[in-house]
Amino acid sequence: MSIYWNKLINSIEPYTAGEQPKEGTRIIKLNTNENPYSPSPKCKEALVDLDISKLRLYPNTDSAIVCNAVAEVDKVSPENVFVGNGSDEVLALCWQTFFEKDMNTSKAVLIPSISYSFYPVYADFYSVRAQKVPLKEDFSIDPEDYCGKENCGISIANPNAPTSIAMSIEDIRKILEANKDSVVLIDEAYAAFAEGYTSAATLINEYKNLIVVRTLSKSYGLAGLRLGYAIGDKELIEGLKRARDSFNSYPADYIAQTLAAAAIRDRENFEKNRKALISTRNRVTKELRQMGFELPDSATNFVFAKPPMPLTAETLYKNLKAKGILVRYFNKPLINDRLRISIGTDEEMDEFLKAVREEIKDGKNS
Amino acid sequence: MSIYWNKLINSIEPYTAGEQPKEGTRIIKLNTNENPYSPSPKCKEALVDLDISKLRLYPNTDSAIVCNAVAEVDKVSPENVFVGNGSDEVLALCWQTFFEKDMNTSKAVLIPSISYSFYPVYADFYSVRAQKVPLKEDFSIDPEDYCGKENCGISIANPNAPTSIAMSIEDIRKILEANKDSVVLIDEAYAAFAEGYTSAATLINEYKNLIVVRTLSKSYGLAGLRLGYAIGDKELIEGLKRARDSFNSYPADYIAQTLAAAAIRDRENFEKNRKALISTRNRVTKELRQMGFELPDSATNFVFAKPPMPLTAETLYKNLKAKGILVRYFNKPLINDRLRISIGTDEEMDEFLKAVREEIKDGKNS
Repeated sequence: MSIYWNKLINSIEPYTAGEQPKEGTRIIKLNTNENPYSPSPKCKEALVDLDISKLRLYPNTDSAIVCNAVAEVDKVSPENVFVGNGSDEVLALCWQTFFEKDMNTSKAVLIPSISYSFYPVYADFYSVRAQKVPLKEDFSIDPEDYCGKENCGISIANPNAPTSIAMSIEDIRKILEANKDSVVLIDEAYAAFAEGYTSAATLINEYKNLIVVRTLSKSYGLAGLRLGYAIGDKELIEGLKRARDSFNSYPADYIAQTLAAAAIRDRENFEKNRKALISTRNRVTKELRQMGFELPDSATNFVFAKPPMPLTAETLYKNLKAKGILVRYFNKPLINDRLRISIGTDEEMDEFLKAVREEIKDGKNS
Repeated sequence: MSIYWNKLINSIEPYTAGEQPKEGTRIIKLNTNENPYSPSPKCKEALVDLDISKLRLYPNTDSAIVCNAVAEVDKVSPENVFVGNGSDEVLALCWQTFFEKDMNTSKAVLIPSISYSFYPVYADFYSVRAQKVPLKEDFSIDPEDYCGKENCGISIANPNAPTSIAMSIEDIRKILEANKDSVVLIDEAYAAFAEGYTSAATLINEYKNLIVVRTLSKSYGLAGLRLGYAIGDKELIEGLKRARDSFNSYPADYIAQTLAAAAIRDRENFEKNRKALISTRNRVTKELRQMGFELPDSATNFVFAKPPMPLTAETLYKNLKAKGILVRYFNKPLINDRLRISIGTDEEMDEFLKAVREEIKDGKNS
């Protein structure tokens, strides 16, 4: 509390990011869904070649070179792409642009009851009413729950986090069809890790109310670069630019633009790391199930797992931490019996699995 | 207009940045107050040495290495520093944190009637009432106009833009003393170019209601890096962090943090470029006055000059543009008889002065 903060800042509960260990600490970090693999070597080449005299000028406001790279890969027009300082910024701008600021209306933005925990924070911060829609018992999203319900927008992570479960493109289409008057935001932060996934971005020419958000943080191993983007109809992109230009006209710096474009164009590195991660994830899923963990098939770079009795999620989280292995524990209703475990390299996951085995043995002996 | 934008986005008038010529165009660019000199060579070294594998991890949320560098140079504690994605983002977060969202209150944020044109945009975008306080006839700010007036905050650029005029530290102190219940934001984007200027940041230990905002864009020649920061009492910094964590927890990327810290620590390069710019500016001021221009002594990296009759600012702007020289013309009341001209290298300014001389001759002959 401070007399110098306004009412909103005094009352709001900010987002809590996963803890970041001090540099130099020897730790296996499986708590913030970072990619275990280094980004494209093209990024290093771009860095070494970079002409720093260009830094004296303001960067391109639209990050045109990134829009062009995305357009090529996703087979859309550059005018369908909006680039921001990480997908969190892009999501925040979506909330500010498409969803009505009116706490006293009956029309709320529908969000899954369990999803990216930044959504309710955006709702509070931008004075938008949000309504949580319960998941099914198996943690999946029922598209019917988003059809025929009055709303001023919909925001869904697909695949969803921390549940790791993906909806099909047919389900997304159902939601779009039923909500033609409001914007449907599909947050595809983890989509690269879903096997056989068809991106919602393939539907932007059919649905003017669809905005798809992506990040380079996870799929390209570039969390440190802060680069995210949205794909949607030109009119939605134009709205995002109006919000951007009322806040910060140059969201992505010159270096980030250069490296992002290089990384996006390196399809070989992207595919190699994506496949390696999926293979490790599928192996870890199998091994955890063999140990008695309950977890859904993951479409992401993490698994959402409930330890076998008598081991609790909280105890396992703490004991792993004591061993230098960080995973994410959410002390929240419905999910406090589970851990979100990011997928690291095979070596890291072997160490993780070994530590978990020890914990299960200790639990049985105690 | 779009049915998919909310009321605010449909009604707002976004900020208009100075035009950016297409890459490859041969142009003398004196319209966006960029620094004509390349940034510190330490930035190039930092780039070449950079370990890109670090990019797979989220960056430090507080940009600790930048806070440390600022703390050293400004003789404050790192806890007094907040880093953001350009000073525009930092300013926007200040408006969201310190100024009350209430369009129906009698308490407004006081801003100079002529100042950085982003302030009224922030006011609209964040639903804060702003009240414009007229400048004196000579374009300077009278501190008395900010004393004894009910308000919920004050936002002043010092030196002011586009007027190029600086207030003294004694005047700032007067405003701080008279407004102990509200936050006084001093935007020092151009302060490095004010001769004999004492930064308001020297007062942060005396005034808990003072927040000072700076940018690396102009003074460090790093507009392309998007790095700005605020200096203030710990409680104000904490408020900014609450706003940041309700929006985007990682505003500055790993590379920007690394280069910014290197640039800030290179005092020699900073001083060299600063002095070169001041010397060119003072020469240009003298030569423009000799040609009959009216302009105040500038404390910035631009001059704000009224051409001699019969030449109008608008005509001169257009004719210079036709010759490949871009300056900034604001088609707004009170200042549409003047041009804001950024200071380039000596060579660029010689070309500019030559072109202006031709225009004056043409004007006399026509």
